[in-house]
Amino acid sequence: MPARTPEPPYYAVIFASTRTGDDAGYAEMAARMVELAALQPGFLGIESAPGITVSYWESEAAIAAWHANAEHLEAQRLGYARWYSAFELRVARVERAYSFRSASPDPPAGTDPADC
Amino acid sequence: MPARTPEPPYYAVIFASTRTGDDAGYAEMAARMVELAALQPGFLGIESAPGITVSYWESEAAIAAWHANAEHLEAQRLGYARWYSAFELRVARVERAYSFRSASPDPPAGTDPADC
Repeated sequence: MPARTPEPPYYAVIFASTRTGDDAGYAEMAARMVELAALQPGFLGIESAPGITVSYWESEAAIAAWHANAEHLEAQRLGYARWYSAFELRVARVERAYSFRSASPDPPAGTDPADC
Repeated sequence: MPARTPEPPYYAVIFASTRTGDDAGYAEMAARMVELAALQPGFLGIESAPGITVSYWESEAAIAAWHANAEHLEAQRLGYARWYSAFELRVARVERAYSFRSASPDPPAGTDPADC
């Protein structure tokens, strides 16, 4: 589901991962991290799909604070030790953005695999 | 699956979408666009999951050329008319990146939902 974000510039953290296959505790932690990120100062939105999560932030300082959040640090530790066999984490400055919303009504919720 | 990209800086195009539910021709076109993008000058890699695709490019000029590719323009037209009820397209400059590869062997291919 596309996140609604303000006019650029702002920052994106693009996290692309391959999982180990050890899923113990993963879904709960992932859900908790989304919840927790949303409470951080400077959080603008998040888009998540299996293997890719993009979060949006007002500033590099907001990203640094989120990175250092204690509960997030513990999630990162488990990510390295258990859940991810590989990942790429990229920090990017969003320079321009374009939104499209169809004139026709949205389909019923739950029909889009991106909603999972 | 994380794309292997060179050292920053480079550019990311982050495309997050919600689909209409009209899937006619979508999967074929999406696969064709990945194939075609990879042939473009300045293409660095792509990560794709249901609802989010991130492609990486050497420069803004490479992105502009891909945007104007004739076959891609036709795909864009069908995207507006048929496949997408909403999307956000963001162009961002990747400023730093961090890679992780686990010391333990990768799981067998196909075990990660991100491979879909």
